Amino acid sequence: MTERVRAILNCYESDNPGSRANLARMLNHGRLGGTGKMVILPVDQGFEHGPARSFAPNPAGYDPAYHFQLALAAGCNAYAAPLGFIEAGVSQFLGEIPLILKLNSHDVLHDEKDPLSAVTSTVDDALRLGCAAVGFTIYPGSSQAQTMYGQAREIAKEAKSKGLAMVLWSYPRGSSLSKEGETAIDVVTYAAQIAAQLGAHVIKVKLPSAHIELKDAEKVYNKHHVPIETLADRVRHVVQSAFNGKRIVIFSGGPKSDNDEAFFNEVRAIRDGGGSGLIIGRNSFQRPRAEALKMLGTLIGIFQGKA
Amino acid sequence: MTERVRAILNCYESDNPGSRANLARMLNHGRLGGTGKMVILPVDQGFEHGPARSFAPNPAGYDPAYHFQLALAAGCNAYAAPLGFIEAGVSQFLGEIPLILKLNSHDVLHDEKDPLSAVTSTVDDALRLGCAAVGFTIYPGSSQAQTMYGQAREIAKEAKSKGLAMVLWSYPRGSSLSKEGETAIDVVTYAAQIAAQLGAHVIKVKLPSAHIELKDAEKVYNKHHVPIETLADRVRHVVQSAFNGKRIVIFSGGPKSDNDEAFFNEVRAIRDGGGSGLIIGRNSFQRPRAEALKMLGTLIGIFQGKA
Amino acid sequence: MTERVRAILNCYESDNPGSRANLARMLNHGRLGGTGKMVILPVDQGFEHGPARSFAPNPAGYDPAYHFQLALAAGCNAYAAPLGFIEAGVSQFLGEIPLILKLNSHDVLHDEKDPLSAVTSTVDDALRLGCAAVGFTIYPGSSQAQTMYGQAREIAKEAKSKGLAMVLWSYPRGSSLSKEGETAIDVVTYAAQIAAQLGAHVIKVKLPSAHIELKDAEKVYNKHHVPIETLADRVRHVVQSAFNGKRIVIFSGGPKSDNDEAFFNEVRAIRDGGGSGLIIGRNSFQRPRAEALKMLGTLIGIFQGKA
Amino acid sequence: MTERVRAILNCYESDNPGSRANLARMLNHGRLGGTGKMVILPVDQGFEHGPARSFAPNPAGYDPAYHFQLALAAGCNAYAAPLGFIEAGVSQFLGEIPLILKLNSHDVLHDEKDPLSAVTSTVDDALRLGCAAVGFTIYPGSSQAQTMYGQAREIAKEAKSKGLAMVLWSYPRGSSLSKEGETAIDVVTYAAQIAAQLGAHVIKVKLPSAHIELKDAEKVYNKHHVPIETLADRVRHVVQSAFNGKRIVIFSGGPKSDNDEAFFNEVRAIRDGGGSGLIIGRNSFQRPRAEALKMLGTLIGIFQGKA
Amino acid sequence: MTERVRAILNCYESDNPGSRANLARMLNHGRLGGTGKMVILPVDQGFEHGPARSFAPNPAGYDPAYHFQLALAAGCNAYAAPLGFIEAGVSQFLGEIPLILKLNSHDVLHDEKDPLSAVTSTVDDALRLGCAAVGFTIYPGSSQAQTMYGQAREIAKEAKSKGLAMVLWSYPRGSSLSKEGETAIDVVTYAAQIAAQLGAHVIKVKLPSAHIELKDAEKVYNKHHVPIETLADRVRHVVQSAFNGKRIVIFSGGPKSDNDEAFFNEVRAIRDGGGSGLIIGRNSFQRPRAEALKMLGTLIGIFQGKA
Repeated sequence: MTERVRAILNCYESDNPGSRANLARMLNHGRLGGTGKMVILPVDQGFEHGPARSFAPNPAGYDPAYHFQLALAAGCNAYAAPLGFIEAGVSQFLGEIPLILKLNSHDVLHDEKDPLSAVTSTVDDALRLGCAAVGFTIYPGSSQAQTMYGQAREIAKEAKSKGLAMVLWSYPRGSSLSKEGETAIDVVTYAAQIAAQLGAHVIKVKLPSAHIELKDAEKVYNKHHVPIETLADRVRHVVQSAFNGKRIVIFSGGPKSDNDEAFFNEVRAIRDGGGSGLIIGRNSFQRPRAEALKMLGTLIGIFQGKA
Repeated sequence: MTERVRAILNCYESDNPGSRANLARMLNHGRLGGTGKMVILPVDQGFEHGPARSFAPNPAGYDPAYHFQLALAAGCNAYAAPLGFIEAGVSQFLGEIPLILKLNSHDVLHDEKDPLSAVTSTVDDALRLGCAAVGFTIYPGSSQAQTMYGQAREIAKEAKSKGLAMVLWSYPRGSSLSKEGETAIDVVTYAAQIAAQLGAHVIKVKLPSAHIELKDAEKVYNKHHVPIETLADRVRHVVQSAFNGKRIVIFSGGPKSDNDEAFFNEVRAIRDGGGSGLIIGRNSFQRPRAEALKMLGTLIGIFQGKA
Repeated sequence: MTERVRAILNCYESDNPGSRANLARMLNHGRLGGTGKMVILPVDQGFEHGPARSFAPNPAGYDPAYHFQLALAAGCNAYAAPLGFIEAGVSQFLGEIPLILKLNSHDVLHDEKDPLSAVTSTVDDALRLGCAAVGFTIYPGSSQAQTMYGQAREIAKEAKSKGLAMVLWSYPRGSSLSKEGETAIDVVTYAAQIAAQLGAHVIKVKLPSAHIELKDAEKVYNKHHVPIETLADRVRHVVQSAFNGKRIVIFSGGPKSDNDEAFFNEVRAIRDGGGSGLIIGRNSFQRPRAEALKMLGTLIGIFQGKA
Repeated sequence: MTERVRAILNCYESDNPGSRANLARMLNHGRLGGTGKMVILPVDQGFEHGPARSFAPNPAGYDPAYHFQLALAAGCNAYAAPLGFIEAGVSQFLGEIPLILKLNSHDVLHDEKDPLSAVTSTVDDALRLGCAAVGFTIYPGSSQAQTMYGQAREIAKEAKSKGLAMVLWSYPRGSSLSKEGETAIDVVTYAAQIAAQLGAHVIKVKLPSAHIELKDAEKVYNKHHVPIETLADRVRHVVQSAFNGKRIVIFSGGPKSDNDEAFFNEVRAIRDGGGSGLIIGRNSFQRPRAEALKMLGTLIGIFQGKA
Repeated sequence: MTERVRAILNCYESDNPGSRANLARMLNHGRLGGTGKMVILPVDQGFEHGPARSFAPNPAGYDPAYHFQLALAAGCNAYAAPLGFIEAGVSQFLGEIPLILKLNSHDVLHDEKDPLSAVTSTVDDALRLGCAAVGFTIYPGSSQAQTMYGQAREIAKEAKSKGLAMVLWSYPRGSSLSKEGETAIDVVTYAAQIAAQLGAHVIKVKLPSAHIELKDAEKVYNKHHVPIETLADRVRHVVQSAFNGKRIVIFSGGPKSDNDEAFFNEVRAIRDGGGSGLIIGRNSFQRPRAEALKMLGTLIGIFQGKA
């Protein structure tokens, strides 16, 4: 075990060895293994956005096995998906890559301002399927946030007692927030803090903009000159908001980029700001496989300091 | 054990020895140990107000370990925080200071008139993490108060059967109350009474103003000339409302003060009115450490009759 | 927290913070607090041997409060007793000394070669009564050992999940062992190993003699020249058998000694051999209080390196 | 409440108010109410010895209502019986006298050396029937004692959590004891100690003889000159063995006496030795009602210091 | 994943992906990873034989961390031990080597002809500690075998539902078998069959001799000329008895060998007979570390076809 990984695991000293070992498995797997950085492939968009929106750009992605293979071939640290996708592919890839079972899911057939994801699988499913972690999404800002926080609590409690790691997707949304506010720096850092306080081992947030949504927050940012100008500054502020870097924070890659160089610069900002890595779905599986592998290779190279 | 502490514990004679022993641990810890007075450091603002609003004034506070150390160094009686902050720091401070696990939390990303906190951790978490007490917030005046009272009931029942102490934050809020009404003397005393009736061992309220919110109450205050002119009068009336002083009442310190002397006078009023102490978060951890220790030292000195 | 105590707690890193905090409480309490050494007062002899045999030498001991006071006054690290004794005294000594609830008990009214203790209280009783640890006796060598090992497993699992520490009394007895064999060096080290493998945090054994009971063991001791000549050698070998000193081993003081100097030499051997301390019942509470305090003072002085 | 009763209840400070209130009800009921002394009428002999042996001497006793009436008329503190007797009579005497439901029973149709009573009703039955306490018999000395101690633990735990008092009949019997040994002073005191350690609120034992059964005990009695010559001495020693008088000990009256004056002298010895009272079944209900009331009147007078 | 490992996993197709993934983890770890062969380090001898008999030959082995390090350095597929040894070392080796928690244990302080191991830890412990598998010992031939088969059934059911692998130690012993019979070819193959029928994923047996214990079996071996002359023949027959090779069978290495070349020839026979590998405890950890690593290196080389 590298010094870096051991230092990260020491931040989780109040957890069972099982949960820490599963964190270690993710941190030590793939091409970034041992660096303390993670690139995770998540494929929950079939449920979240619908199949054609997700897979038509690269129809190979309709097949569950495709994503296991992509994550493996690219040397990702882990692969995350909802129950069906895991069940349909796991037996071909036994023990080959750490799996994260997404326990709740949300679709867009019903349009709501204040979303609540449905709990669609369980911690026991994760054990049965041999997963290293469970994933769960909360929407801070939704009027239904309390319900999701309570579900997250129950799942965290059970997952921790059974030796799994817990990954929280913390995505601000809801009627109280403007569209721009969903990625405002004060809102994203707040989302990271909430996830950490709920006991997440790994926190996933979106890359923040320099916009400040809440009036009370704005005063503080101005008064204390919190540096948020560059993306790296803002990443650093998110990491700080996740217990001063004592919780792993990874950033979502967003939709397929038209401009890879711009995207790579974002990844460099994550690296430079001390982010722990990237969770990148559409931007990888919506390209042809070879292109995706090349892109993921560059991205991993960035975290390795080679690009 | 001092006579004073024994007299306080005798007020809780219907409780299990375990709950009383945990009350004793808090009353006997720190520089006020044995005096019957308590100063508690609570750090739940990261969740309640967001990370920058809480920690930007003193960025050391982004780190969970900072607050354990501050509470210890200042000689506080206990440290209170939500799950994540406790989990992230507890292993470095095993058994060194009584801990209060805040079991519910509320954020301000969703704006609501009638707030309901989410239950974000459990009594079993408190046992697993070695805490002396659980903390819980109720918002009397919210249309959702019944839900919170019911949650408080379940938690009190479980905590008491498992030998923990129960601290209730009782903060009037909601669409039926004016902003001024949230700290009105009739409302704060009512909040203290409700917390006591719900079975709290320790009650936390805000310092009350001389404003009277409810018409029916106003008539009674006038007719019976209830003394509420000075802050000490009002503290005395709150203590009276908490079962004539048979329940421990502590007052919240509010945001960082610009005028420390005014704040110290408030503390003297708490002391003179027979309040059991202070729960002081932002006003301590938002200053540089040395300054915070000095301020907490003065404050403890006030309760010791030295300042 | 001292370096020594932190080093000891690091050996229990797979445990919940609650269990480790309760170990810390015992290690940090009393006159040996912080040294890593422990002197525990156990009073289960009323049940184990009968009241007159236990308390007639010093009738003050019939009263449950006497032993709490003795343990406190002497500066012991903890006090251990069965349900009735704890229930009858705990309310007078709330939080003043770490308590160990003995969960099983055995009496001598029924004479048997292969003893099985009755389970006489529960982990939940320990929580309700505010105890830091549960205690349990196993009799390796008894034909009923499997039953006791199974009970110990259930209790360890529950106690650890609820944040308590677990103390195992491991006393070889039964039809397969000679009387001399019960304290034979190979048997006592075996008893320590079994307790450690069952997951005990603290192990209590008797001081071993140089006798070797088992033929297969004798060959090994001779072939490898295991040093067992002096008592300090044998203590060192017991400590080695408790995971190379990674588990706390304390030794029982036995019946009231007629020759205190001989007893103090035994204590010096425990210290010199690296034992973690002493659990001393009859030899303390069967003397007049003043005499007991003096004797316990000397004994604590030995562990402090002063006598 | 009298000073005396308050002093007794203070010995049970670790118990729930419900259990203490039920103790208070028994201590405050009847002609001895408030004195701290108790006379209890137990009628479990129909099950224990058979109906004719129990009721033929006074056939009125075949009727369950008879005993309720007798206990009431005599001014006893409580009435104890197994499920059937309570169920058959309780509705006529609702709330008129504290009831003790005997939860286990033993018959003599099967003859065994090492008896084990059957558990024949439950704590919930006691609640349903409005009882103040549950009763339970243990046979220390039986090879089945562990089983009974374990049952007593479960019942004590449940009864205490549900606010009932717990009365233990502690009757040494079994293959390891001589007939004389069942009432030997060392054995009866040991039985009282075991019941107290198991958490009994009220302990019932037989009057002890001066015989000493166990060799190891004999040495101690001789060496320390424990006074056991007179019956009052021995009662005093039993009370001492029940936590130095901190647990209520009552003595059984035995079979119908032929010589009432001798029996009254025994009762005087209980009083003079500090016993808390008498549980007297056959010796009362096997006489004609008028005679029984007279006898019970004398007996109560003895405890009142009038006879 | 290699073809060989995939072929093996295909034999477990009715199992949950979690159990198969954990099998895969063990098959893919270490220097034999991917070959379908396994060398496992088991250290349960401290409990099974006593500490000095186990560790005096190489005292470094008293320390739990030593064995984790040895298994890692040697490139073993997994490390197996009882609860205490796993708890005491796991936090230093998080996720670094697949762990097998031995759920039952037996000691030799009580001598019995028909042994029954005590169940000393649970499937939930294995999850909490991050283990890949649970281990369990059965003694076919013991009068207590049914009890152990029943325990194995419960554990297999639970382990499989929670995604763990199940390793059965199947060691014939008991009053019905001669000493020679314990390793008789008909008995060892029978033990392998029973373990397979009980649902074991991995079966551990001793190397069989050419002796035939059971008369009825002897007739069949003679009549059908079952080849059992060479050790490789007998290994092949054991593998055949474990569902024609559809269950993994590994052989135990026995005590420290004086003649390594003879031992290596046994290992070659296991390889040549199609055995899946070796579980080797004393013969490795009772040597100095450098020697043990060399020996394990040779042994692994044999399975790799290099020695």
